[in-house]
Amino acid sequence: MYTPAHFHETDADAIEALIEAFPLAALVAQTPEGLVANHVPLLREEDALVGHIALANDLHRLLGDGAEVLAIFRGEDSYISPNWYPTKAETHKAVPTWNYQVVHVHGHISFQHDRKTKLAVVGRLTKRHEEAENGSAGWRMADASKDYLDMMLDNIVAFRIEIARVLAKSKLNQNRADADFNAVAEQMAGCGKVGLAARMKELGKNR
Amino acid sequence: MYTPAHFHETDADAIEALIEAFPLAALVAQTPEGLVANHVPLLREEDALVGHIALANDLHRLLGDGAEVLAIFRGEDSYISPNWYPTKAETHKAVPTWNYQVVHVHGHISFQHDRKTKLAVVGRLTKRHEEAENGSAGWRMADASKDYLDMMLDNIVAFRIEIARVLAKSKLNQNRADADFNAVAEQMAGCGKVGLAARMKELGKNR
Repeated sequence: MYTPAHFHETDADAIEALIEAFPLAALVAQTPEGLVANHVPLLREEDALVGHIALANDLHRLLGDGAEVLAIFRGEDSYISPNWYPTKAETHKAVPTWNYQVVHVHGHISFQHDRKTKLAVVGRLTKRHEEAENGSAGWRMADASKDYLDMMLDNIVAFRIEIARVLAKSKLNQNRADADFNAVAEQMAGCGKVGLAARMKELGKNR
Repeated sequence: MYTPAHFHETDADAIEALIEAFPLAALVAQTPEGLVANHVPLLREEDALVGHIALANDLHRLLGDGAEVLAIFRGEDSYISPNWYPTKAETHKAVPTWNYQVVHVHGHISFQHDRKTKLAVVGRLTKRHEEAENGSAGWRMADASKDYLDMMLDNIVAFRIEIARVLAKSKLNQNRADADFNAVAEQMAGCGKVGLAARMKELGKNR
């Protein structure tokens, strides 16, 4: 990913927060059938990402153990109009752009077919999202009938991506004058792009 | 992309609408430096997608003319709790899932360095997004000083992706009972996922 220094996101907490807030990754790989992407919620576990796909998904047959994959996490994004820059009227130096936050995780994938690993992965994913969505009233795996759960587990494959490299970009008008930067942060807050607005506010403290 | 028949999006209008509503594509390619993705707003033009990248972005040096690329467009997404399915209490046959809409455009890319093509691409992108955002008060390219615009044009490369194949997936609980499907549609509307709710409502008419 083209990442000029001023857009390079290096804050580990901000990177972690983006993966947490937007866990549905685009999992991309080059396969004998060409470029393939699948959209899968992932969990970060120290130096790895874990998740699962359908057994019917050819990905685990197309990729050898340790194959290179790229997991793309992306937050909110917004078109940015030059009209929003206060300096525009004076300088006439502005063109449209696009703001966004992304985290690219490059790594090597391996697939696990054993019941224990599959159960552990779906268990952790379920706990994470049920707690966030439903709190203490969250659904638990024990709420499903055992036969049904067994069938669902038989129909998936777990995977683990050992992380080789993380590249993150927060493209948030850091290259504009303070007045423009602050005005866009306000604009993002006003139109409900709270994630972009929050990160701009954080970055604004250190300008 | 693994796409079971019941999640295969074949409605041309729905596919077009998703590209229109979520134009920031993840543009993915296999390069001599590994898998690379860049996030770029694209415009559909009949059998092609057009856009531009920074001249400083190595992509146009890494990819030969006609190289395979994948442009991923993605709309809203949501974790889906089994608690939201009315049939769950009777059948105990439910596990968590994730709903989303994606369009994968596979094609072959070529880059254009001539001023005329670059100006045409940024002009069309600007018109499209300024009209949507600011209507008749939209920013126009003539609002920038000519020297500044020339410098910005010198710093970009236009590209065109000839579309080879489009694969779209709307994963929206189509495989659940009507009661579950309708309850999730309501849930999506209630939590502000209006795009997912609207597509579910459309799909619900033909169930």
